[in-house]
Amino acid sequence: MGLNYRFGSLTKGEKNNICDVDGIRIGHRTLDQGQIQTGVTVLIPAPGSLFRSKLEAGVSVLNGFGKSAGLVQVEELGSLESPIVLTNTLSVGTCLNGLTRYMLEENPEIGDTTGTVNSLVMECNDGTINDIRGLHVSEEDVFMALETAKDNFEEGSIGAGRGMICFGLKGGIGSSSRLVELDRTYKLGALVLSNFGQSGRLVIDGKKIPAPAPYKEDQGSIIIIIATDIPMKSRQLKRLAKRAGMALGRTGSIMGNGSGDIALAFSTASRISHEAKDFFQENSYLHEEHINKVFEAAVDAVEEAIISSMYHSEAMTSRRGEKIPSLREFWHD
Amino acid sequence: MGLNYRFGSLTKGEKNNICDVDGIRIGHRTLDQGQIQTGVTVLIPAPGSLFRSKLEAGVSVLNGFGKSAGLVQVEELGSLESPIVLTNTLSVGTCLNGLTRYMLEENPEIGDTTGTVNSLVMECNDGTINDIRGLHVSEEDVFMALETAKDNFEEGSIGAGRGMICFGLKGGIGSSSRLVELDRTYKLGALVLSNFGQSGRLVIDGKKIPAPAPYKEDQGSIIIIIATDIPMKSRQLKRLAKRAGMALGRTGSIMGNGSGDIALAFSTASRISHEAKDFFQENSYLHEEHINKVFEAAVDAVEEAIISSMYHSEAMTSRRGEKIPSLREFWHD
Amino acid sequence: MGLNYRFGSLTKGEKNNICDVDGIRIGHRTLDQGQIQTGVTVLIPAPGSLFRSKLEAGVSVLNGFGKSAGLVQVEELGSLESPIVLTNTLSVGTCLNGLTRYMLEENPEIGDTTGTVNSLVMECNDGTINDIRGLHVSEEDVFMALETAKDNFEEGSIGAGRGMICFGLKGGIGSSSRLVELDRTYKLGALVLSNFGQSGRLVIDGKKIPAPAPYKEDQGSIIIIIATDIPMKSRQLKRLAKRAGMALGRTGSIMGNGSGDIALAFSTASRISHEAKDFFQENSYLHEEHINKVFEAAVDAVEEAIISSMYHSEAMTSRRGEKIPSLREFWHD
Amino acid sequence: MGLNYRFGSLTKGEKNNICDVDGIRIGHRTLDQGQIQTGVTVLIPAPGSLFRSKLEAGVSVLNGFGKSAGLVQVEELGSLESPIVLTNTLSVGTCLNGLTRYMLEENPEIGDTTGTVNSLVMECNDGTINDIRGLHVSEEDVFMALETAKDNFEEGSIGAGRGMICFGLKGGIGSSSRLVELDRTYKLGALVLSNFGQSGRLVIDGKKIPAPAPYKEDQGSIIIIIATDIPMKSRQLKRLAKRAGMALGRTGSIMGNGSGDIALAFSTASRISHEAKDFFQENSYLHEEHINKVFEAAVDAVEEAIISSMYHSEAMTSRRGEKIPSLREFWHD
Repeated sequence: MGLNYRFGSLTKGEKNNICDVDGIRIGHRTLDQGQIQTGVTVLIPAPGSLFRSKLEAGVSVLNGFGKSAGLVQVEELGSLESPIVLTNTLSVGTCLNGLTRYMLEENPEIGDTTGTVNSLVMECNDGTINDIRGLHVSEEDVFMALETAKDNFEEGSIGAGRGMICFGLKGGIGSSSRLVELDRTYKLGALVLSNFGQSGRLVIDGKKIPAPAPYKEDQGSIIIIIATDIPMKSRQLKRLAKRAGMALGRTGSIMGNGSGDIALAFSTASRISHEAKDFFQENSYLHEEHINKVFEAAVDAVEEAIISSMYHSEAMTSRRGEKIPSLREFWHD
Repeated sequence: MGLNYRFGSLTKGEKNNICDVDGIRIGHRTLDQGQIQTGVTVLIPAPGSLFRSKLEAGVSVLNGFGKSAGLVQVEELGSLESPIVLTNTLSVGTCLNGLTRYMLEENPEIGDTTGTVNSLVMECNDGTINDIRGLHVSEEDVFMALETAKDNFEEGSIGAGRGMICFGLKGGIGSSSRLVELDRTYKLGALVLSNFGQSGRLVIDGKKIPAPAPYKEDQGSIIIIIATDIPMKSRQLKRLAKRAGMALGRTGSIMGNGSGDIALAFSTASRISHEAKDFFQENSYLHEEHINKVFEAAVDAVEEAIISSMYHSEAMTSRRGEKIPSLREFWHD
Repeated sequence: MGLNYRFGSLTKGEKNNICDVDGIRIGHRTLDQGQIQTGVTVLIPAPGSLFRSKLEAGVSVLNGFGKSAGLVQVEELGSLESPIVLTNTLSVGTCLNGLTRYMLEENPEIGDTTGTVNSLVMECNDGTINDIRGLHVSEEDVFMALETAKDNFEEGSIGAGRGMICFGLKGGIGSSSRLVELDRTYKLGALVLSNFGQSGRLVIDGKKIPAPAPYKEDQGSIIIIIATDIPMKSRQLKRLAKRAGMALGRTGSIMGNGSGDIALAFSTASRISHEAKDFFQENSYLHEEHINKVFEAAVDAVEEAIISSMYHSEAMTSRRGEKIPSLREFWHD
Repeated sequence: MGLNYRFGSLTKGEKNNICDVDGIRIGHRTLDQGQIQTGVTVLIPAPGSLFRSKLEAGVSVLNGFGKSAGLVQVEELGSLESPIVLTNTLSVGTCLNGLTRYMLEENPEIGDTTGTVNSLVMECNDGTINDIRGLHVSEEDVFMALETAKDNFEEGSIGAGRGMICFGLKGGIGSSSRLVELDRTYKLGALVLSNFGQSGRLVIDGKKIPAPAPYKEDQGSIIIIIATDIPMKSRQLKRLAKRAGMALGRTGSIMGNGSGDIALAFSTASRISHEAKDFFQENSYLHEEHINKVFEAAVDAVEEAIISSMYHSEAMTSRRGEKIPSLREFWHD
């Protein structure tokens, strides 16, 4: 019962979410009690120990007004070695602790016989709806989200998306996927935590959505995760992450000053072993001449994921009592 | 007799081009002889010696598949110290020579009693229409463009824009401007050299333009220059330049692999002296909390400049004899 | 009773540490119980609310194999709005929580009537000496370090430096300062958390120190903070931070793969208000032609701070029972 | 008859220059007539068409006060597709033209049936000795250097190094190489064009060289090229290039404001085809855990190459008649 809108000309995946990329699991933990309207969403990018067997990854800081943790090392080493936790801005510390404890449990060698781990936590500010100062997310919430993660998931005002606002409408978690035809059919998926955009500026596939505007500020953020099973290098994945900006442009964003817009892309196609058993590792990578198909899939999937995050969200009320409407009141696919 | 389309809600400048920012002059030199369809466009950003009295500037390499010269120093020092020359990709060397000779003539101290000069030359590949291998641009062309530069100019298939193609349609030079209301009215202008986009993917203010597609490749580029008289630091101008990506997204770009998409922003509000007469220089800069208005003006102006570059171009024929249509055959404002 | 070695030709400040820059306070909290050998060091860069009245800052990621939190926003906005907390790698989450709670208490508007706060936490891995997996640092430790911060401090195996190892010798907290003569005398100070370098490769002012080498791995890191009261822009401060690399080169580092080498520089000369009372803010900034003096002071001060961190550390024993010697056993100033 | 100094503990290659990496050829063209004291040095990184069969490469802009052309695309695509030309700052345009013409002749498809080419030209300012304003380098000089390139070469005041000054002493072209033991013996070589450093600040393997100081300014630059036959990705090569900074630190540099310090690293181990015959390309790459050996070799080789560039230079006279002494007057190995 999803969004039946095309967004580009490519074929969508079966689930039309990021779990179409094999091995990805998503878990939500939602806190919904009075003014506590927040949560945690985790993305487990591949089975097995990510620390011992990492993935190629790249990051693009589109607008760096954000507090995500773990990006510096992804940029340097081009690899992802932990699940990704999404949450509210002021809960990054707690989620970092929760995720680190999880990694320590799963990998007893970390910090003992080998180095430490780069835990990745990304965030948006849900303070208009949620009592963000209350720091209500607990490490236990991270564990619960990790333990319940599975290969399909709900979108909208759930998990980390619980209290998010996008273009003055209710935002949150959205996802979408596309098939990419190369030598065979590959998959690409996008997951967003949407919390950006100025009220009244939303554009859906070219159409302006004239939403009422109780919410004036543009203090949002958007976290964008792009996953694919196409063999790609970290440099290529960084280029892919950068294309998320094109989807932001399509939806009407100007990348507002206060919006931390950060995109991460990873490939599940090959694993980089933590231990250097051999001096060299042989891998296959996409030829750059074919990368446009992947770029197109990413832009379309991110655009749809953003709209989908709003489409799947019900109206909510801000801490100050203002109604944050649902996109469905203004637009039908 | 310009483009009468709104593109956003801000007020346009009087000329609706980058020359609305006081002091900016533009000069074209067009080569139009058989398969020689190329040229030079120069932007003189401010009166007086730019070398002795520099401008704050910032650059954003949106997609670095490009051969522009001079960007490294703009990034490091945050300043612009020469006019900007636009041309075809293989004429960067010649234009660098022409511009350097011009700077040497204007500033006899360069390379003698002081250091050298950072000449800025930016480019797109016009090889589908132009005999780019012929290297037909001369240093004399740069001088002629510089000498004839004035405070208003033509858009379309002129100067460096002569042989450019954009979304399968004829591209080239486009420009637009916006007024920005702060403590008083400021101006912001955009100039583009458009040569990007896949045929059939053009979007104008949300409407898809179903152009015929004789031109398949996406080997273009777009050079985007944003100028303003608002006092801004180089860091802020870099942020401003980055917003050009939002305009690319609006027009239907996916920042194709082979497209060198590079944006430069500068402010004419204050001059940085080459000689350090004093230890410190006092300047006024925009508070970041007000930068969204500038971002919005930039995105709208760049979007319009791109469409305007096509709107003002007549149809032409490629070296292989294919017709490159004008946007006006497919769309009317 | 400090290090009496010159390191360059500039005059040192009175305390010869980073507190020579007026307004800076340092606090330590050391955990020393069996295998719990770790801690927290905080740097309060200026009096008053840093959130309401920020400092210009710049960051340079020399080698990004590190887990520091908060760098992305410093890079984007060029400002510092919280104290800086140093700790061990796996305690970043806890310190982020502690620092965030401190900021929330000091600034009730954060997350309520205005946006969130960018808390800055930087780290090195002390796991060879400390039971880092035990996550022994508490939020209370951060508060205690903040509350006891004062304008002078001890160096060596104290605070965050408790369990650090540098070139196979005991490392930790080191600091130094220099006077910079411009129109008047300014101050520049450096603070390091040293935990890098390969055993036997240490160089002190050109002399190789032939230390015994029980500690083979190079999994360290170094955090470098440079402070000055010279009016400088974030772009200039980023350039200043980059010069820390020259000091690393002098001491014998090759910036090993596993070493997260990160430098941050800030100026206390002017404050950037969080609220935009006016559209523009007037500030004085150093002319780039005079920046070499500041660069020289920074390289010398960072070099001395590194050596000082070792000089002030007593020998300790690793978790595996190996002796980590003190520099004083191998070198006397 | 070379420099017999060790610089680190690794074994040097047979020629002890960058041509120890198989396939690399170097050509010089020296202009030596009165005040015309300049030239061109070319590095052909591998046999065959570099355009059709590119190399992995990475770049690090250590200090971006420089005018090199072609770096933006190396950063984006991680590949090298032309020889590298070194020259004086104001001759970049002419050398870009010469190199481009060479590439067009060698590859008739460029700009016709395929895209354009990214020609790489790097520079230092030799204006203290050379009449740099005269623009005496010609495209013919580039051709002559390319045509006479061979697998061994002279160092010192030759080619692009003719008029360079380093730490107040005569600088120029220097080179060195190291063996790297992995599964078998690999080679790494460094080539520098040295023109940086403040008079009296030179350090050779820890010893301060008290040179007389007729030359006060620090307006230099250093171009550093690192080559290896170890299979490495562009991301790893970028990290390798960054290590050149450690060698700068060892020699006494503070990366002066006016010094354009730029490092490029490439691997000859595999070729990336321009045409995408297949969707994917299989390659072997070094495991990051073994990269420290390569880092060490690079730092040592760059350090030696810098000293070697001075060691092989005879004294010369500046345009103003000051003597620029040779290092050999102050130091003997």
